[in-house]
Amino acid sequence: MAERTRFDLSPDELPTAWFNIMPAIVQAGLQPLPPLHPGTHEPVTPDLLAPLFPMALIEQEVSTEEWIDIPGAVLDIYRLWRTTPLYRATRLEQALQTPARIYFKYEGTSAPGSHKPNTAVAQAYYNKEAGVRRLATETGAGQWGSALAMACRFFDLECLVYMVKASYEQKPYRRVFMETFGAEVIPSPSSTTNAGKTILEAHPDSTGSLGIAISEAIEIAATNEDTNYSLGSVLNHVLLHQSVIGLEAKRQMELAGERPDVVVGCVGGGSNYSGLAYPFMADRLRGVSPDMRFLATEPAACPTLTKGRFAWDFGDTGKMTPLLPMYTLGHDFVPAPVHAGGLRYHGDAPSLSLLVRDGHMEAAAYSQNAVFEAALQFAHAQGIVPAPESAHAIRGAIDEAVAAREAGEERVILLGLSGHGDFDMQAYDDYLNGRLPEVEFRQEDLDESMAGVPEVSFGG
Amino acid sequence: MAERTRFDLSPDELPTAWFNIMPAIVQAGLQPLPPLHPGTHEPVTPDLLAPLFPMALIEQEVSTEEWIDIPGAVLDIYRLWRTTPLYRATRLEQALQTPARIYFKYEGTSAPGSHKPNTAVAQAYYNKEAGVRRLATETGAGQWGSALAMACRFFDLECLVYMVKASYEQKPYRRVFMETFGAEVIPSPSSTTNAGKTILEAHPDSTGSLGIAISEAIEIAATNEDTNYSLGSVLNHVLLHQSVIGLEAKRQMELAGERPDVVVGCVGGGSNYSGLAYPFMADRLRGVSPDMRFLATEPAACPTLTKGRFAWDFGDTGKMTPLLPMYTLGHDFVPAPVHAGGLRYHGDAPSLSLLVRDGHMEAAAYSQNAVFEAALQFAHAQGIVPAPESAHAIRGAIDEAVAAREAGEERVILLGLSGHGDFDMQAYDDYLNGRLPEVEFRQEDLDESMAGVPEVSFGG
Repeated sequence: MAERTRFDLSPDELPTAWFNIMPAIVQAGLQPLPPLHPGTHEPVTPDLLAPLFPMALIEQEVSTEEWIDIPGAVLDIYRLWRTTPLYRATRLEQALQTPARIYFKYEGTSAPGSHKPNTAVAQAYYNKEAGVRRLATETGAGQWGSALAMACRFFDLECLVYMVKASYEQKPYRRVFMETFGAEVIPSPSSTTNAGKTILEAHPDSTGSLGIAISEAIEIAATNEDTNYSLGSVLNHVLLHQSVIGLEAKRQMELAGERPDVVVGCVGGGSNYSGLAYPFMADRLRGVSPDMRFLATEPAACPTLTKGRFAWDFGDTGKMTPLLPMYTLGHDFVPAPVHAGGLRYHGDAPSLSLLVRDGHMEAAAYSQNAVFEAALQFAHAQGIVPAPESAHAIRGAIDEAVAAREAGEERVILLGLSGHGDFDMQAYDDYLNGRLPEVEFRQEDLDESMAGVPEVSFGG
Repeated sequence: MAERTRFDLSPDELPTAWFNIMPAIVQAGLQPLPPLHPGTHEPVTPDLLAPLFPMALIEQEVSTEEWIDIPGAVLDIYRLWRTTPLYRATRLEQALQTPARIYFKYEGTSAPGSHKPNTAVAQAYYNKEAGVRRLATETGAGQWGSALAMACRFFDLECLVYMVKASYEQKPYRRVFMETFGAEVIPSPSSTTNAGKTILEAHPDSTGSLGIAISEAIEIAATNEDTNYSLGSVLNHVLLHQSVIGLEAKRQMELAGERPDVVVGCVGGGSNYSGLAYPFMADRLRGVSPDMRFLATEPAACPTLTKGRFAWDFGDTGKMTPLLPMYTLGHDFVPAPVHAGGLRYHGDAPSLSLLVRDGHMEAAAYSQNAVFEAALQFAHAQGIVPAPESAHAIRGAIDEAVAAREAGEERVILLGLSGHGDFDMQAYDDYLNGRLPEVEFRQEDLDESMAGVPEVSFGG
C-alpha cells in the first residue's frame, strides 16, 4: 500500500474551542504591552472600542482564558468546509531531492479560497447577536472582503467593503465575488468618507492603500449607529479565531506520527500564520518543544518584521485606531504594488511582533521573482497553484528543505498554505512573461517612513 | 451533537479500479451501437484510432470488462486531491423548506477546480507509457485544458491546447492557468491547421466553436508522429475514468445511510454526470434499484438531449472523427454564447444517449437566468459559488426539492457539483446586472442544424 500523503480528521474532530496564546505568553515571562489611546497614551479601555466592535469580541480581545468555546452556529458554518486537509508533499520532496519531510495545511478549500472565513464567520455571528445591521471593512487583494461578504450573507447582515482602488481596478472578479454574496464594494479612497476626501484632495489620483481603506471603514462604523467595523487580521480576537487551523494541524501531525521541526507561514497582519503556529508555539513557550522553530515570511517590498521597528503605531493611515505595540514600517508607508496584496501592510499583530522581538520566531523576506519561482515549483509538483501570499511560505519551506539536503539531515517542515491563486492569474502572467519588477524596501528609507510614528513614553 | 453534513472516505477507500457501465447495459438488453467509419459506414476498427490514441485507451474504449484496474502512478496523482467530499446541503434544504434531503458530491477541490483531472491524469499516463511526446486537445471554457495541462506536467508531456477563440479572449486567466503548467495555448480557429485555415477563409471573424477546435487538435495529432490527441468527454474511456466520482459517492451515501431517489447532474458531453451516475445506474439496470431516477440537465441554448435527434453524427465540425451514435443537434451547429461553455457541444456520449433514448434517464433544459438564480441560491446557503455548468445540475436539484415539498414527500436527491466558478465571475457579473440574454434553441430550426448529418443505413 502506498505511503499516506493525506491526514484527514473526522467531522467529530472539528475543534469546539478556540485557543488563546496570551496565557502561555505571560507564563513564559514575556511581557505583552497594551494598545494605547492615541491622545493620552494611556492603555485603551474596552469602552473605547465599543462603537466599533460588539462586547463579545472586545472581551475576546483582552481575554486571559486559554480556551474560548466556539458557538454552535459558528461550528455549523465551519462544517461547510472544515476540517481542512493536511497533506504530505512527497512529490515536492522528490523534486527537491531532500531528506526533509514537508507537510502542508491547506486552507484554500473554503469557498473564498483562504483562511479568512475562520474569523469572518465568527465576527459576523457576534455582531448579529449584538443586533448590528451592517459591517464595514476594508480589503486589499480581496480575500478578506470575499470572506466577510459570505459570512454576512450567512447571518443576514449587510456588508460594506472599501477595496483598495488599485485592486478594485486590477481584480474586478474579486469585486464580483463579493457582490455575488450581496456586498457593496466601494473603491478606496472614496468621497463617501472624510478620510477618503482628505486623501483625494491631496492626491486626486491616489490608488489607495490598506491603511487608507481601514480609515474609511472605521469612519463609517464610528459615525453610523447600526454599523460596526470588522478587521481581517492583526487583532487578538482575529488571531484567536484562526487557531482552528493549528488545532487541526496539531492533531493531523499526530496522525502522521510527526512533530514539526519548523513551522513556516506568510505574514501580512499575522492571522493565518499565528492561526497555524500558536498551538505549536505554546509547546515551545512551555518547554515541551523548546527547539521547535518558527519562520514568518514576508515580501522584501514590505518587510515589517525583518526591517521595521518595534514601536507603538497606528493601524491605519488616518490615525483613527489605538496605538498598537508592533513591528511597523510607519502608518504612512505605502508599499510598492507587489502582487501579494494581502502582505502589503505596514504593521503586524502585537503578539506575533512580541514573539519575534523576544527570539521565539524567526523572519525572512523574499523578492517577488523568488516567490513565484517557488510557487511554480510547488504547483508543478503538487498541482495546487498557490496565492502569491501563500507562495512566500512555500519559498521559506523550500529553502528549509534545501538546507536540510545540504546539511544531510532529516527535517520535518510544516507549511501553512493559506489559499489558492485562482484570482491571481494576472500575477502569474506577469511572472511568466518577465514583467515582475524586483522591489525591495531600503533600510535607509526607514527613518522617513517612520517619521509620522508618535514618540511614546508609556511605561518607560 | 450536530447532525453530520459531510461524509469523508479514508485514504484507503480511494477506488482502485474504474467501473465500466457497458456490461450492465448489454445485460439489461439495451443494444449499444458502434461508432462508424465516416466513409464506409462500417463499424470502426481499433487500428483506425491508433494514430490518435495509445492502444491502452483504445482497449478501454471497447472494453467489455466491468472493472479496470487504476495504475498505481495514476492513483498517486489522484491522491493529491481525492477522495472528494460528499456533503448534505442542510442549509439549502432549510432555505427551500423542503422535506427532501439534498446531498452533493463536490469535484471542485481539484486544483483545476473540476472533475476533469480524473481522466486527464489517466490519459496523460497511458500516453506517456506509449512513448508519446505531446498531447493536443481543445478546450472551451478552459476546465478541460487546465486539467490536461496539469496532467501533462505531472508526466512530463508537452501540451498543446486549441482554445475556442471567444473563450480565449473572454477568459484570459484560464489561458494563464494552463500556461502556469507549461501548456501552449492557441486561439481557435487558427492558421496552424488546414481545418482552421478553411474556417478562417470562409469566416475571418469566426470566434470558434468546440467542434472546430476539436478538428484542429485532431489534425495536429494525425499529422505529427510524436503527438496524440486527447478528448475531455464523450468517449467511453473518458466516462470510464470519471467513474471514480460515483464509486466514491456510492460509498459515501452508504455512510450517510441513504439511497438516492434521484441522481442529478449537468451534461455537456456527459462525462461528469456519467461518472457520478453510472455506478448507481448499474443497480437500476440490474433491478437492484429499478425506481431510482436519473436527471440529466443541459442549457436551453444547446438542448442536445431534450431537442436533438438520435443519429450517427460527427464529433467535430471538420468531419474528422468517426460517426458516433448519439443525440445531436448537428455537427455544424454553433450554440449561442451562453456562459456555460462546457455545455456548448452539439452531441453527447453514446452510452448516455442510449440510456436517455431507452427511458432509463430523464433530461431537462434550463435558460441562463433560471440557472444563475439557482447558483446564487446555492451559494448563499452553502457558500460555494458553482461553475455555470454545475449550476444547471443545481437548478435540477432545486426543482426536485421543490416538487418534493409540493408533493409533501421525502426525497433523497444526489447532486453532482462538478466544479467551482472562480474563473466565471464575468458570468456572475452579467447575471447580477441583468445582462444575460435568454437564448433558446428553437425546435423548428432543428432541420436546418441537422442538414449536414449523414444518412446512415447501418444495421437497418
